[in-house]
Amino acid sequence: MLFRIKFFCISNSIYMDYNATTPLDPEVIQAVTEAMHEAWGNPSSSYTPGKKAKELINWSRDNIAQLVGGRSEDIIFTSGGTEANNIVFYTAIKHFWDSHHKAGMNSAAGGHDGNSRVFPHIITSNVEHDSVSLTADNLVKEGKAQATFLPVSKVTGCIEVDDVIAAVRPTTCLISVMLANNETGILMPVAEISQQVKTLNQNRDSELPRILLHTDAAQAIGKVRVDVHDLGVDYLTIVGHKFYGPRIGALYVKRPGTSSPLHPMFFGGGQERNFRPGKMTGTNNFTEYSSHMREVKDYLEEKLLATFGKEKLNFNSHFKGSDRLPNTCNVSILGPNLKGQKVLLNCQRLLASVGAACHSDQGDRPSRILLTCGIPHAVAINALRISVGRTTSKADVDIVVEDLKQAVNELEGFTAQAGQ
Amino acid sequence: MLFRIKFFCISNSIYMDYNATTPLDPEVIQAVTEAMHEAWGNPSSSYTPGKKAKELINWSRDNIAQLVGGRSEDIIFTSGGTEANNIVFYTAIKHFWDSHHKAGMNSAAGGHDGNSRVFPHIITSNVEHDSVSLTADNLVKEGKAQATFLPVSKVTGCIEVDDVIAAVRPTTCLISVMLANNETGILMPVAEISQQVKTLNQNRDSELPRILLHTDAAQAIGKVRVDVHDLGVDYLTIVGHKFYGPRIGALYVKRPGTSSPLHPMFFGGGQERNFRPGKMTGTNNFTEYSSHMREVKDYLEEKLLATFGKEKLNFNSHFKGSDRLPNTCNVSILGPNLKGQKVLLNCQRLLASVGAACHSDQGDRPSRILLTCGIPHAVAINALRISVGRTTSKADVDIVVEDLKQAVNELEGFTAQAGQ
Repeated sequence: MLFRIKFFCISNSIYMDYNATTPLDPEVIQAVTEAMHEAWGNPSSSYTPGKKAKELINWSRDNIAQLVGGRSEDIIFTSGGTEANNIVFYTAIKHFWDSHHKAGMNSAAGGHDGNSRVFPHIITSNVEHDSVSLTADNLVKEGKAQATFLPVSKVTGCIEVDDVIAAVRPTTCLISVMLANNETGILMPVAEISQQVKTLNQNRDSELPRILLHTDAAQAIGKVRVDVHDLGVDYLTIVGHKFYGPRIGALYVKRPGTSSPLHPMFFGGGQERNFRPGKMTGTNNFTEYSSHMREVKDYLEEKLLATFGKEKLNFNSHFKGSDRLPNTCNVSILGPNLKGQKVLLNCQRLLASVGAACHSDQGDRPSRILLTCGIPHAVAINALRISVGRTTSKADVDIVVEDLKQAVNELEGFTAQAGQ
Repeated sequence: MLFRIKFFCISNSIYMDYNATTPLDPEVIQAVTEAMHEAWGNPSSSYTPGKKAKELINWSRDNIAQLVGGRSEDIIFTSGGTEANNIVFYTAIKHFWDSHHKAGMNSAAGGHDGNSRVFPHIITSNVEHDSVSLTADNLVKEGKAQATFLPVSKVTGCIEVDDVIAAVRPTTCLISVMLANNETGILMPVAEISQQVKTLNQNRDSELPRILLHTDAAQAIGKVRVDVHDLGVDYLTIVGHKFYGPRIGALYVKRPGTSSPLHPMFFGGGQERNFRPGKMTGTNNFTEYSSHMREVKDYLEEKLLATFGKEKLNFNSHFKGSDRLPNTCNVSILGPNLKGQKVLLNCQRLLASVGAACHSDQGDRPSRILLTCGIPHAVAINALRISVGRTTSKADVDIVVEDLKQAVNELEGFTAQAGQ
């Protein structure tokens, strides 16, 4: 019965799960619709629907290059962030073996198993998106690489630059650290890592592979300033549907094939066979959007404090000394019957999530990201990830906090009754 | 100047390159546009835009399953035909090694190099799409497989079943033969191959890997009847934009993981991370469309004969004893100054192609497919691939043939003048 009521009230819903996915910008919808009518041709063909497709692709490429401060030639379109991240890992391993064969790597270089086989080594954090962490896991499982999964600090929620550098081995060929975490919103020190890696690479034995640096910027773009030069990365992953664009992705590669290697995983359709005429927006107004989102998110946190009181709340994304995304509030309302899933189910209007789940089969286990950031199990299981967007208003926040309050009252009333 | 005239006359153009890509069905455009408005959520999420996305995906899956006579559970969405074909090859190699390790394959099994290393072996034709032939090439180049590229018969334009069976080795793990060629339209005897492979598999030593059978049906769907049971294949590749659908693909896998193995190439987003709400159509009316296209194509060939005369033409897709797609006319207008590219450039209204080029860098070399089918170089270089669609009319044909006649007159007049 509750379900039916919720279902029919859906137009009253207030969406605050912008870190999961954003709706499409009306301009994007229009551009894609026009493209379906007029730019359906093969971009390599010489007639109009093909030429239009090519124009649109080039225009999008310029746009995305601008978005991250790179050159158009450095942007490779992919089917999504998962493909982009997989390409980076595949490329790094292949590059390792290419360098290895070229240099005849010294067996003293380390990274051997008992049979003195050499393995490429990868460093990443333990709070990455599945498309990084499962790819690394799989490489290890298949005996194709060794990997170090660095924990984030329980104080800062952030990966430590010193830990990254200390983990480097002679066989290290890739460091992959996300720019902003999708659950806590914590910003990672990618530029600082880059500085140190640059020095390491300069002083490295020429027989050793250059350490490549990758950042998955899926959560950061459109929310904070992202500039590939400031970051000093070889690769940066871009995902359209995280900033009002279509469900496509792109990979920034610093001068592909010259400065940074790039190896395709598929053969036969050209590197960008996946690209569909589309459009990504969000480039120029990000400071305006960003300060709006920060203001609304801060208002949300104040309002939560005023409503529930400090003792009843834990802000899971407040870490000392760390910056975070302006739009992300990860909060637990404390209490025995207030699991995140349950609270959301009892909300009449709020649409949010309990964490980053690409799959729906995670049941009601707490987020592994929060646990690894040092949030206790009993707190993490109550977590709500509330992420606001460009159009979220303070009036929306008022409604949502009231909604949460009623849901909590209901759940606690039920507990009280059951306890009688 | 010519370019400018052509450019402004573009609305007068008559498109006859439906084998390269089709425009989108207006119903598809509407469905996709609606989906961008309403079904933009993560299909695993529990709120409406996500639920709608999931509904749409399931609906599309049922639709595509129906289209090829399979079960919904057997349809895997991909970013396109290239990904689908690459997954099949990747899966077959991985399956070979899994069986190999399980069975401890006998070293007498064959397929060894000088150091008696075992290699998985693949059989394919030499007229496949790049996404099959380059993938096989690359596996060989990287030392991951051995491959036999079987030539098609110069009489039938078709791969011979006996050649396929004769090429089978103890290490053969995959046979991949397209259902219809994209340039000649010739239909390949996949069902017959399947029959023989079935017998081979039944009589095979249990230590040997099962031979998997794949067909790329990109060109066949929507034009001829395609039924996975009649074909008896393990895998079948489906491409949306070849039959009025969006630029996405799908792979039919016979009972994935049970009857036929399936290994993902990417990690982290689920197997179908690439799927965008979309819609493929073309299922129920194919016989009607098919006979319409055949009628129009036959009319085109008659009209060409009547206009240019038998001596001036070579139909590059007429092979004795072979069936071909109902919509495909591959024809050379014979003469020294009548290269296909040149003729098309001089046409005012016809939009067609000289062959299947995913890339535009092929210059004016003749199609490798036609050469391999036994068409002489001087004929192949004049080839025009004219492929009609559902909405092509006989009136369109009249205009196009007149257009070709004028282009040919112009080019031959120019030659005559230059010769004076």
